Amino acid sequence: RINGQRLWQSLMDMAEIGATAGGGCNRQALTDEDKRGRDLLISWCEDAGCTVAVDEMGNIFARREGRHETLPPVITGSHLDTQPTGGKFDGVYGVLAGLEVMRTLQEQDIRTEAPLEVVVWTNEEGARFSPAMIGSGVWSGVFDRDYAWQRSDKAGITLQQALDTIGYNGDVPAKARPVKAALELHIEQGPILEQKELQIGVLTGIQGMYWFDLVIEGQPCHAGPTPMEQRCDPFMGLSSITRKLYQLAETHAPWARVTFGDIRAEPGARNTVPERLVLAVDLRHPDKSVLDAMEKAFRDIAENECGRLGLTHSIHEEWRLPPVSFDTLCINAVRKAVDQLDYPAMEMVSGAGHDAGYLAGVAPTGMIFVPCEKGLSHNEAEHATPEDLEAGCNVLLHAMLDLAQQ
Amino acid sequence: RINGQRLWQSLMDMAEIGATAGGGCNRQALTDEDKRGRDLLISWCEDAGCTVAVDEMGNIFARREGRHETLPPVITGSHLDTQPTGGKFDGVYGVLAGLEVMRTLQEQDIRTEAPLEVVVWTNEEGARFSPAMIGSGVWSGVFDRDYAWQRSDKAGITLQQALDTIGYNGDVPAKARPVKAALELHIEQGPILEQKELQIGVLTGIQGMYWFDLVIEGQPCHAGPTPMEQRCDPFMGLSSITRKLYQLAETHAPWARVTFGDIRAEPGARNTVPERLVLAVDLRHPDKSVLDAMEKAFRDIAENECGRLGLTHSIHEEWRLPPVSFDTLCINAVRKAVDQLDYPAMEMVSGAGHDAGYLAGVAPTGMIFVPCEKGLSHNEAEHATPEDLEAGCNVLLHAMLDLAQQ
Ligand SMILES: NC(=O)NCCC(=O)O
Ligand SMILES: NC(=O)NCCC(=O)O
Repeated sequence: RINGQRLWQSLMDMAEIGATAGGGCNRQALTDEDKRGRDLLISWCEDAGCTVAVDEMGNIFARREGRHETLPPVITGSHLDTQPTGGKFDGVYGVLAGLEVMRTLQEQDIRTEAPLEVVVWTNEEGARFSPAMIGSGVWSGVFDRDYAWQRSDKAGITLQQALDTIGYNGDVPAKARPVKAALELHIEQGPILEQKELQIGVLTGIQGMYWFDLVIEGQPCHAGPTPMEQRCDPFMGLSSITRKLYQLAETHAPWARVTFGDIRAEPGARNTVPERLVLAVDLRHPDKSVLDAMEKAFRDIAENECGRLGLTHSIHEEWRLPPVSFDTLCINAVRKAVDQLDYPAMEMVSGAGHDAGYLAGVAPTGMIFVPCEKGLSHNEAEHATPEDLEAGCNVLLHAMLDLAQQ
Repeated sequence: RINGQRLWQSLMDMAEIGATAGGGCNRQALTDEDKRGRDLLISWCEDAGCTVAVDEMGNIFARREGRHETLPPVITGSHLDTQPTGGKFDGVYGVLAGLEVMRTLQEQDIRTEAPLEVVVWTNEEGARFSPAMIGSGVWSGVFDRDYAWQRSDKAGITLQQALDTIGYNGDVPAKARPVKAALELHIEQGPILEQKELQIGVLTGIQGMYWFDLVIEGQPCHAGPTPMEQRCDPFMGLSSITRKLYQLAETHAPWARVTFGDIRAEPGARNTVPERLVLAVDLRHPDKSVLDAMEKAFRDIAENECGRLGLTHSIHEEWRLPPVSFDTLCINAVRKAVDQLDYPAMEMVSGAGHDAGYLAGVAPTGMIFVPCEKGLSHNEAEHATPEDLEAGCNVLLHAMLDLAQQ
C-alpha cells in the first residue's frame, strides 16, 4: 500500500508552484512555473532512485530499473501543466501518484521484473499551445515533431523556443519505444463516481470527440430601417441550429454530448445584424458509428436551416479524436487490483480526452479514475478527497506490479 | 433649384478624407481625418458667405444672416463622422446638402427673413465615443456636458482631450438656443424607398429604440464528462430566448424590429460549457405602447426560459430613445416642397436614430429621406444616386426657404 499522507503532501507542495489567489493553479505549459514544477518532480524522482531522461518534446521519463533491463517498461503518467484557472489535481495527480508508486517500492525494497517509468507529457491542456496533448501526440506518431515545435502561443513564442528557454529541449527522440503497458490515473472531471458513491472508475475507453467551427453567414444590415422579413440574420440560423443539435443529443441519450463553448459575432456592433457568427461545436459519443451519425446530422441540420433562412455556412474541422478502446491486458490488471483492494468501483468510458488516448495507438493502455467533488474540473475549486486519491494510487500500484511481473 | 453636380462633387471631395481601400470612408469622430473634414467644410461655408461658430462640444454652426437678425434661425445639418468601415453618404450628405443650399442662395443672391444655419453635430455614430449622437444630445439637454467630455475611446482618450487635440473645443455654450425649425436630410439606410421606386421620404417621426445587454448565467463544466441533463448551459437559454423574441417581432409585424448585434461567451473555451453569455438586444417600434409591451415580453421570456432551464439572468439597460413625433410645421413644409417639385414620395417613420431625434425635444424638427442602394448603410459599399441626392437637396432648399419666410 502506498502512503496516502505523503502523496497528499506532494500534491500540496506542487500546488504552491503557480498557486492562484482563488485556490487553484496557473502553471501553463513550458512557463517558468512549469519549469519549477518539472525541476521539483525530477529531484523527487531521483531521490526515489529513478534515472531521468527528457525527449525532444520535453516529455520527462523517470525510470526505475527492473530485474530485466531488456524487458519493455510499464509506464504511468499524465501532465503537470494546468489551465490558466486550473486546479490542483487535473494531471498532476497522475504524475505524483506514479512518483508515490516509485517511493513505495524503494521504501519496501521491491524490485519488479520489468522496468517502471513515470512520464510527464508536455502541454496536455492545450491552453498555451494548441492542440492539446501534443507531447503524447508526437510521441505516439499522431503529430509530426516539427509541426509541434512550430506551434506558437498568443505572444508568438514557439513551442521549441519555450522548450529552449526553460531548458527542457531533451535529446531523446520523441518517438514511441516498445512498452509493456501504459496506465494513466486521473480525476474523473465529471460527477458520475461521486453521485454513485464509488471510489474507482475502471476505464474501458475514451469517447470520441469531434471539434468543429460552424460559420454562419448572412447580410449585415442596420437594426432599425431593415424590415425583419428582408433580413439574412445569422442569429436566426444559430437559434434553430443549436435547438436542433440539443434535440440530436437527446436522440442519442444518455451518452451523446453536444457543447457550444465559444461564439463570436462579426462585426459585433449592437445596431447591426452580424455578417457572420462563428460557433465552436464539440460533439462526443463513445461509439464511432453513432458519433459519425451525429456529425452527419449536424452537417444536414446546418445545411437545411441555413438554406431555409437564406444564409450560407461553412464547417471547419478543428480536431478529431475517434473513440478509443483500452487494452484488455490493462483493463484486467486494473479490475484485479480493484478486487484485491476491495474498493467500490464501476467500469466507465472517459468523457474527456487524455494522453492515454494517444498512447493507446502505440501501446497496451488503460486508465483509472477517482471521483472529484461535484464533477468540477478546469476550475480553481477542483477538489478530490485524500482518501479517494490514496485509493486510486493503491490501484495503480497493484496494477503496475501485476503488469510488471507478467 | 440647387446644383446637383456641385453637391455630388463636394461629396466626392469630402470622401477623399479618410477614404478606405474598400471604397468607403473611415473618418471617425475627432480624429485627424475628422479635423481635415471639418476644416474643409468651414472653408467652403465661409466662401459661401457664412460665419462659423464652434461650441464646447465641437458642434459647428455656419450661419447665413437673414433680413432679421433677431429672428430664430432655421437650421439644418447632420454629421461628418463615419463608422470605421462607413460609406460616403451617411451624415455627410445632410451637411453638404445644407452647404449646397447656402451656395445656391448666395449664387442667386436670395436673402431669407430668418437666418439659416448649417450644423455639424459631433460624434453622431458613437463608433469612437459612446453614446451615439452625443453632440446633439448635449445641445438638446439630454446629456450633461461634463459627462460627455469624460467619455473615452478604446485608447482611453477622453472626448474633451480629443476636442483639444484637433482644436475644436469652442467657447460657445453647447446649449439649445431658440430655433425656428430644424431639418435633417439623410439617406434612408433601409430598402423601402428603393423598393417602392420613390425619391423622397417625408418623415413623420423616429421609431423608439431600447438597447439592453442580456446576461445569461449557467455553470461552467467540462464538455466531455458532464451528462447533458446535469448541465446549466447558457446556450440552451440563448437558443429559446432568441427564438421567442423573433416570434415576438412577428406578433408585432410589420413595424417591430428585434436585433442581436453582438454576443460574447465567457470563458469562451471550446471544451467548456460557458459560465456566461452576454447578448446585445435592440428592440424597436414606432409606437411607445407597443415598444413598452415588447420590453415587458422580453423580460418575461428571459425570466421564464432561464427559470425553466435552471439558469440565472440579468438585463442591463444600455440606452433608451422613445419614439419621436416630428413637428407639424416641419412635416408640412417638407410635404409642400415635395408637392411643388413633384417628386414621387411617401410618408414614413425613421428606423434609425438621428441627431434630429434629440433636436425634436427642444425645437420644431423634421427629416427628409432619399433612397440608398439596396438599403445598405454602415458599409463601405453604401451608395445613392446623384439624381436622388439632388432631389433631396431641392426639397431641403424649398422647405428651408418656406420655413424662413414664415
Ligand atoms: N482532460 C481534458 O480536459 N482533455 C482535453 C480534451 C477534452 O476536451 O476532452
Ligand atoms: N443613423 C444611425 O445609424 N443612428 C444610430 C442609432 C441607431 O442605431 O439607429
